[in-house]
Amino acid sequence: MDDALILMADGGGGERMMDLVRQEILSRFAPADASGELARLADAAVLAEAEGQVAFTTDSYTIRPLEFPGGDIGRLAVAGTVNDLACVGARPAALSLALVIEEGLERAVLGRVLDSAAACAREVDAPIVCGDTKVVERGGADRLFINTAGVGRIEGGRRLAAEGIRPGDRVLVSGPVADHGVAVMSRREGLRFASAVVSDAVPLWPLAEALLAACPGLRVLKDPTRGGLAAAVNELAEAAGVGIEVEEARVPVRPAVAGACEALGLDPLNVANEGKFVVVVAPEESEAALSAMRSHALGREAAEIGEVRPAPARGPRVTLRTRIGGERVLEMPYGQDLPRIC
Amino acid sequence: MDDALILMADGGGGERMMDLVRQEILSRFAPADASGELARLADAAVLAEAEGQVAFTTDSYTIRPLEFPGGDIGRLAVAGTVNDLACVGARPAALSLALVIEEGLERAVLGRVLDSAAACAREVDAPIVCGDTKVVERGGADRLFINTAGVGRIEGGRRLAAEGIRPGDRVLVSGPVADHGVAVMSRREGLRFASAVVSDAVPLWPLAEALLAACPGLRVLKDPTRGGLAAAVNELAEAAGVGIEVEEARVPVRPAVAGACEALGLDPLNVANEGKFVVVVAPEESEAALSAMRSHALGREAAEIGEVRPAPARGPRVTLRTRIGGERVLEMPYGQDLPRIC
Repeated sequence: MDDALILMADGGGGERMMDLVRQEILSRFAPADASGELARLADAAVLAEAEGQVAFTTDSYTIRPLEFPGGDIGRLAVAGTVNDLACVGARPAALSLALVIEEGLERAVLGRVLDSAAACAREVDAPIVCGDTKVVERGGADRLFINTAGVGRIEGGRRLAAEGIRPGDRVLVSGPVADHGVAVMSRREGLRFASAVVSDAVPLWPLAEALLAACPGLRVLKDPTRGGLAAAVNELAEAAGVGIEVEEARVPVRPAVAGACEALGLDPLNVANEGKFVVVVAPEESEAALSAMRSHALGREAAEIGEVRPAPARGPRVTLRTRIGGERVLEMPYGQDLPRIC
Repeated sequence: MDDALILMADGGGGERMMDLVRQEILSRFAPADASGELARLADAAVLAEAEGQVAFTTDSYTIRPLEFPGGDIGRLAVAGTVNDLACVGARPAALSLALVIEEGLERAVLGRVLDSAAACAREVDAPIVCGDTKVVERGGADRLFINTAGVGRIEGGRRLAAEGIRPGDRVLVSGPVADHGVAVMSRREGLRFASAVVSDAVPLWPLAEALLAACPGLRVLKDPTRGGLAAAVNELAEAAGVGIEVEEARVPVRPAVAGACEALGLDPLNVANEGKFVVVVAPEESEAALSAMRSHALGREAAEIGEVRPAPARGPRVTLRTRIGGERVLEMPYGQDLPRIC
């Protein structure tokens, strides 16, 4: 028996699986779970009663490679789900963690990835309270997939939703775009000149909390993951039934990221982020939102990038004022530029 | 473009993915979601405020084949998560559904499986309110994995937990064991003589509700999935710090299932169930629990199968009184008899 690799028997529901769960899961996540629910290994965790509405979200992560500059699938899985909760204004209350492991995965890799997930969860005090472990035979999965679901609490009955967006509202982004996608892609493609680019994967709840406190007129937060800023803005315009104009020159992009996108034939506006918000806010609070973000470590390079317009009678909802002064449609990406990016 | 098969671009976060989500997900699940949250396609769903504690659980399903006698991965994913909630006495309030699809999966198969998930969710009025779709390249997964997480409401502040188990309590099972594992395995192995065996996959919340109403002394419910009855009873004994004695002759097993287990070299007590409860109840309420179950479609063949004992000073916690009158240890299964069974 080679304990360095995960075997099919580690997922069978028997004594071996209990050992794996104790060694790899409970050791890392139970100490941070004040409720003690994870350690009970019951069929479901019971959360403490609390005031307010409950938010609920899920995401599966299939990123390749599992480890990349600035993060790994464990960090991504925790940050991504915390960020989805933050987008509706919910403080993360409890997370689940479900693993699908390909037989033969090195336990050392699993350990590193779970260490990283645990560290990320501690950053925002979001305990992992329930989970699941499945093992499939070699060739039945690509090393490791992680699903995280999250439950959050919305305090003060405040509702962030695209439906609150009005013409005249300002569109902001909390920092430079496309870092995550470019970091992963340049690792995958072996682009040496982009080696300085690291993923922005980070749990954004603290930034959301700062924005909620600073801006009573905060309409909505959205994390521009797959499909990048272009998809996020299009989805907001569609959901709100408005037009949005984005000014290309105002969208922050790091030079190394811009260079890598050029080399890869990608538009940075279509490339995934894992630690940024698109923020829509009432016009009179745009400055307050910018200043709240810029005075926070997670939003130092925040920028106003556009404005909400009345719904166009027909035609595209999102337009881009280009650097050279022209105007073009900022399209919803069609298929995908970067597979397996999250 | 062959619309009969899922392509990588269907998971890219762009227009194609939105089409897939509308056609395959929203069409099936949005009508049953009175909250309208799923249709909003926001980053997280916001649940209606309600009294009581919140339960939270997750499970990933990697079963092979995707469709088997009596069910499919879609039905299993919904029933399994509802049952995990029911085990802590929680009425299902909202489910998530996250798909990892292998490129090339037939859309017809996806459609059938999702139809089945939707029908199963309707059976217990458990709306799917959020989800995620990922596509990985051919060979990167085995056709389709589904993760469901669930949020439930515990009414009346009642807590079902292994810690409430006391010596003298009775152990019941809600019906014949091993149907699910044998149905899947006989399909996989092409066992013709077992063709009459169908999976028991069913959402058990209605049966839990009947038990909660009939038995104030209900200690705990547990669904004996991977590792079967043997694993479930061992986990309960371990968590409660008690011994449990099970009487083999009292454990209901259908003749066709017993025959198939014999042919496959399996002990039915180690084989997975997806529609059964192990029930522990105060001794004076054992009859009430049996009668509540037997008068319900989901528990017609319920039986009392054992009793809780004081914790043994040392040695095994769970013993089996065999048919021939002997006594042996009912062990926690070690690895697994049946891979990819759920």
